[in-house]
Amino acid sequence: MPYQIAILGASGYTGAELVRLIATHPHMEVAALSADRKAGMEMADVFPFLRHLNLPKLVKIEEIDFSKIDLCFCALPHGTSQEVVDALPRTLKIVDLSAGFRLRDAAAYEKWYGAPHVHPDLQAEAVYGLTEFYRAEISEARLVAGTGCNAATGQFALRPLIAAGVIDLDEIIIDLKAGVSGAGRSAKENLLHAELSGGTHTYSMGGKHRHLGEFDQEFSKIAGRSVHVQFSPHLLPMNRGILATVYVRGNPAQIHETLRAAYVKEPFLRVLPFGSLPSTRDIAGSNFCHIGVIGDRLPGRAVVVAVLDNLNKGSSGQALQNANLMLGIEETTGLMLAPIFP
Amino acid sequence: MPYQIAILGASGYTGAELVRLIATHPHMEVAALSADRKAGMEMADVFPFLRHLNLPKLVKIEEIDFSKIDLCFCALPHGTSQEVVDALPRTLKIVDLSAGFRLRDAAAYEKWYGAPHVHPDLQAEAVYGLTEFYRAEISEARLVAGTGCNAATGQFALRPLIAAGVIDLDEIIIDLKAGVSGAGRSAKENLLHAELSGGTHTYSMGGKHRHLGEFDQEFSKIAGRSVHVQFSPHLLPMNRGILATVYVRGNPAQIHETLRAAYVKEPFLRVLPFGSLPSTRDIAGSNFCHIGVIGDRLPGRAVVVAVLDNLNKGSSGQALQNANLMLGIEETTGLMLAPIFP
Amino acid sequence: MPYQIAILGASGYTGAELVRLIATHPHMEVAALSADRKAGMEMADVFPFLRHLNLPKLVKIEEIDFSKIDLCFCALPHGTSQEVVDALPRTLKIVDLSAGFRLRDAAAYEKWYGAPHVHPDLQAEAVYGLTEFYRAEISEARLVAGTGCNAATGQFALRPLIAAGVIDLDEIIIDLKAGVSGAGRSAKENLLHAELSGGTHTYSMGGKHRHLGEFDQEFSKIAGRSVHVQFSPHLLPMNRGILATVYVRGNPAQIHETLRAAYVKEPFLRVLPFGSLPSTRDIAGSNFCHIGVIGDRLPGRAVVVAVLDNLNKGSSGQALQNANLMLGIEETTGLMLAPIFP
Amino acid sequence: MPYQIAILGASGYTGAELVRLIATHPHMEVAALSADRKAGMEMADVFPFLRHLNLPKLVKIEEIDFSKIDLCFCALPHGTSQEVVDALPRTLKIVDLSAGFRLRDAAAYEKWYGAPHVHPDLQAEAVYGLTEFYRAEISEARLVAGTGCNAATGQFALRPLIAAGVIDLDEIIIDLKAGVSGAGRSAKENLLHAELSGGTHTYSMGGKHRHLGEFDQEFSKIAGRSVHVQFSPHLLPMNRGILATVYVRGNPAQIHETLRAAYVKEPFLRVLPFGSLPSTRDIAGSNFCHIGVIGDRLPGRAVVVAVLDNLNKGSSGQALQNANLMLGIEETTGLMLAPIFP
Repeated sequence: MPYQIAILGASGYTGAELVRLIATHPHMEVAALSADRKAGMEMADVFPFLRHLNLPKLVKIEEIDFSKIDLCFCALPHGTSQEVVDALPRTLKIVDLSAGFRLRDAAAYEKWYGAPHVHPDLQAEAVYGLTEFYRAEISEARLVAGTGCNAATGQFALRPLIAAGVIDLDEIIIDLKAGVSGAGRSAKENLLHAELSGGTHTYSMGGKHRHLGEFDQEFSKIAGRSVHVQFSPHLLPMNRGILATVYVRGNPAQIHETLRAAYVKEPFLRVLPFGSLPSTRDIAGSNFCHIGVIGDRLPGRAVVVAVLDNLNKGSSGQALQNANLMLGIEETTGLMLAPIFP
Repeated sequence: MPYQIAILGASGYTGAELVRLIATHPHMEVAALSADRKAGMEMADVFPFLRHLNLPKLVKIEEIDFSKIDLCFCALPHGTSQEVVDALPRTLKIVDLSAGFRLRDAAAYEKWYGAPHVHPDLQAEAVYGLTEFYRAEISEARLVAGTGCNAATGQFALRPLIAAGVIDLDEIIIDLKAGVSGAGRSAKENLLHAELSGGTHTYSMGGKHRHLGEFDQEFSKIAGRSVHVQFSPHLLPMNRGILATVYVRGNPAQIHETLRAAYVKEPFLRVLPFGSLPSTRDIAGSNFCHIGVIGDRLPGRAVVVAVLDNLNKGSSGQALQNANLMLGIEETTGLMLAPIFP
Repeated sequence: MPYQIAILGASGYTGAELVRLIATHPHMEVAALSADRKAGMEMADVFPFLRHLNLPKLVKIEEIDFSKIDLCFCALPHGTSQEVVDALPRTLKIVDLSAGFRLRDAAAYEKWYGAPHVHPDLQAEAVYGLTEFYRAEISEARLVAGTGCNAATGQFALRPLIAAGVIDLDEIIIDLKAGVSGAGRSAKENLLHAELSGGTHTYSMGGKHRHLGEFDQEFSKIAGRSVHVQFSPHLLPMNRGILATVYVRGNPAQIHETLRAAYVKEPFLRVLPFGSLPSTRDIAGSNFCHIGVIGDRLPGRAVVVAVLDNLNKGSSGQALQNANLMLGIEETTGLMLAPIFP
Repeated sequence: MPYQIAILGASGYTGAELVRLIATHPHMEVAALSADRKAGMEMADVFPFLRHLNLPKLVKIEEIDFSKIDLCFCALPHGTSQEVVDALPRTLKIVDLSAGFRLRDAAAYEKWYGAPHVHPDLQAEAVYGLTEFYRAEISEARLVAGTGCNAATGQFALRPLIAAGVIDLDEIIIDLKAGVSGAGRSAKENLLHAELSGGTHTYSMGGKHRHLGEFDQEFSKIAGRSVHVQFSPHLLPMNRGILATVYVRGNPAQIHETLRAAYVKEPFLRVLPFGSLPSTRDIAGSNFCHIGVIGDRLPGRAVVVAVLDNLNKGSSGQALQNANLMLGIEETTGLMLAPIFP
């Protein structure tokens, strides 16, 4: 019998993406779906693209019998998630997709999210869910905290370089271009088609974007000293995809080789030949991350470009990859779907 | 001194389009701008693309001194508009862009809008604002009711044909493709970029779209008998533009010649050579309407295709054209801006 | 050992879509890929989104050893395809995706394609590939002719209605909205992003679109008399998807019930509840076709709306479905991937 | 009588944008339009959006009687432009929009464009057309060389800062996001809608983009020493607009104040309040450039963001602004059109 899966917050984009992925997963079955305002509705009415699937109705969380659930994905807002995860059975395996448990340090959490963490014990328990770098911990974990989608992109470009000491830690700039689905499905004027299509702008500039908390935590941990990158997010008129243009100082060939060697056995992380740079179109809808490196005309400077799909590798694909590990399933199961182009 | 203009409901797309057009109008000046929830804000904060203009701050309607206003555009929801127009000085010239005063018949209004009209006297006073067909009345009018944007498109394709008796009145189908700005600036889930881009769907199908009230009223009046068209609107992933594909029965060459002759002196209505059909891209941002006619392989059937910009010729451009007439200004003033492409 | 598959014309969109689908097909393996001008290149350089797959290099057709191939997909232009298919071993199973073999009648082919068919014997041999209606013949066939993507959409909406005699055969209009990938990957000014995005226009109007040849052939065959529909294609600023708005005369409830009953056991054809109409967004990237029916306010008139993905169900998905049948594999294998949204 | 204007290369996007702008210019008239392959065609057939204008037919350059022309815009490829400008009467005022005359130094030209300049005398004569910084020279010039659209954007963000010495000259990075119309109207596979929409990628990375030649020339001239910036262009799925994210080192408030003071009297350059950053949507279709400055969390680092419309302020609007100066017309004439939104 396949593992029984619950998805809390199934009326948002990451919830729907989880359902889409699990639909072709041979060892998982969607057993429960929750939504708050849309409880009582059929998933086919909330997301008609899932109409062909035989799915349970959306219910309130309290209506779910968790004794029958093997693993629960939480795709709720980060504040809600802390409360909900606390109330779930302490034996239940959980992959949380919110920002609720990403930061290990209580002060850091309060700084970036503007309020103290409600359940520091859970914050301490949670394992940071960047699969390729926390495999062992994730396999043993009960509660895994999915990373920010931008945070994942930047880390795939930079972690091996920081670890290997091949770049200047004080001269890192991440100029990031993000698709609009990362902002979620909530009805806001600034997310309307008429407002967004055909143009671009920055957001959360000047060191204010919350994913900086993850960069600070992870890069400083690897480096053994404080590392503070500069991070500039831009919103683009596309639904899926993140492209991070990462400016670093160091030997370009060495930087490329470091990434290549680090990821040579990774099924989802693909380093392109030196000088080739990736496009978001080539990973849309998939769990793949493509990474390229090029040297600048200015000696000692390189640019690393990483792309991934924010809803998939940056969120729900990563979550499923972690769930596979937690359940003892082969890590790539259900995740080898090709990207979709055009 | 230029005419002093007030725009009520200036925080929506049609209000902003009016400001954009009046910005280069030699005989008008924006003297007052109202918004409800955004009262107190600078227009540059609500619509940064108008930043270069020296505009009055947004205020509540009751803060405007209408004794200094020569003409007032109302770009409010149709229910609100009835109340507001009633409260304005009865000597003030008004162009209303809502659906509040488009239908002459009280029963028809109630049927299509689901509630009785609040001010039947104003409903009776209002002149239907399809400029090319109501010029004389508009020139004399105090209160002009802007047409629906879809209603305008369909009428430009069909009025001369119905008047000339060259088509079968019982066999008219309008299959309409509309850009998303027609749905306005309100924050709704179904108008998000992530929901709309890259796909299409129908809406208000089956004879339910309110612009049918205008089609029924106008076509029946011209024909001297009941005319009920079939009307199928589709929402397209584009911000501006309407394309109406109109299926009619009659002699294609005669249909083309009827339209050509009817519009040969019209500055904004352009009939293409027989067999050429228009694109929405060629009228975006302008007050022009392009119309084409082609015969089908089935004898006695023709297709008329009309395109216009819903925010301009379909709404704010039409309103300005009417305001020019009402103020005794040359009708095309401020409206000869070329479309923008690409 | 999986079936060995060749794809001729793998540098176009339908070729790439075949590779994408076969990538997760448990019983097929891509053994050979051909391209003309791009022969010698790696598939990953022609379509970087397929980079993660272990694929053969693109070669010229004559370099392929067809004795090792179980089934060959031809995704070539229709003129080329006739020559190529003729030159292939007469024992090789072939699914042709071009227009080369869709029309059974030699005169019809010459009329719509402007030149006589080069290999009338193959034209006679080919089975029309609309899977749901030619299952038995396809299962036995050596050569299957994929349908036009627009032709498939219109037929899914209409075939059961014509067969059941529930609509007026002389009053059928198909107003079709198509995404741009249907026009292929060739570099043409009118397909540029700057030309297409943000607008819409008609094409091949007036009874000139070649897919009318398929409509005429199939509908007349079902009806046992000549049936000539009116067909108006529009190009939309979206990459994938077709929405056909089909105007018919008859009893709307009966029309809905006829379609529902006809497709109730079909895995890929989904009829929505009466009055619900589909969106192209809900089938993008998948082999599903959603169909809805609504009655108009005018008695005796109904609108059927059908949507499918032109590259998938309209072309490569259909081809794979047929290939499954030809090889004796369960028909849905490799095709149950969920659509992708947003 | 208005000035008689010729536009060479009128079948491209910048040519059409010139026609669009001159259409409402009170002192200019389009007297001649040339195109090479499209000679003999009506402009309304090449660009139907200009259908309402009474324009001369497209002709070959040699068919134009330049004795009747007051000023000529050349919107030709840079190689062609050198030959053509040389052949024009040496008394004719010319604004060249190509890269043919932007670089003053012969060696620099050869380095960036891969071939020696054909007419070094014209190269020496040409004045660099960045209006706000070369007004006096442009007013006196016979031949003005329009700037690169990316080069203009970067210079508006940086010139006053370099001149004032408020930023570190060795630490400048320009991460630029460009719309697709900048790539022109030529039919290339990589510019198709199906290839570009819904995604993003880099191009000409690693110090290879030709506009670096302009940055090097101008920034080094201002600084009185070699200045070499890092420049990373990205292509975005939007038709118009450039957003340059410029990373600099210095005091953010001083940087903002330097730009504000430098541009306070400029009609087209608008510096936003400190901390506000602009969107490309707010300048589309106009000659305006919006610039914002924000400080990073890292002390001594600032980001300057500049946006303009590549076809307008970045090309044809700039050209018209220069032409106004050369003809002694008020500089803003014909250029105060508001942007178009949405």
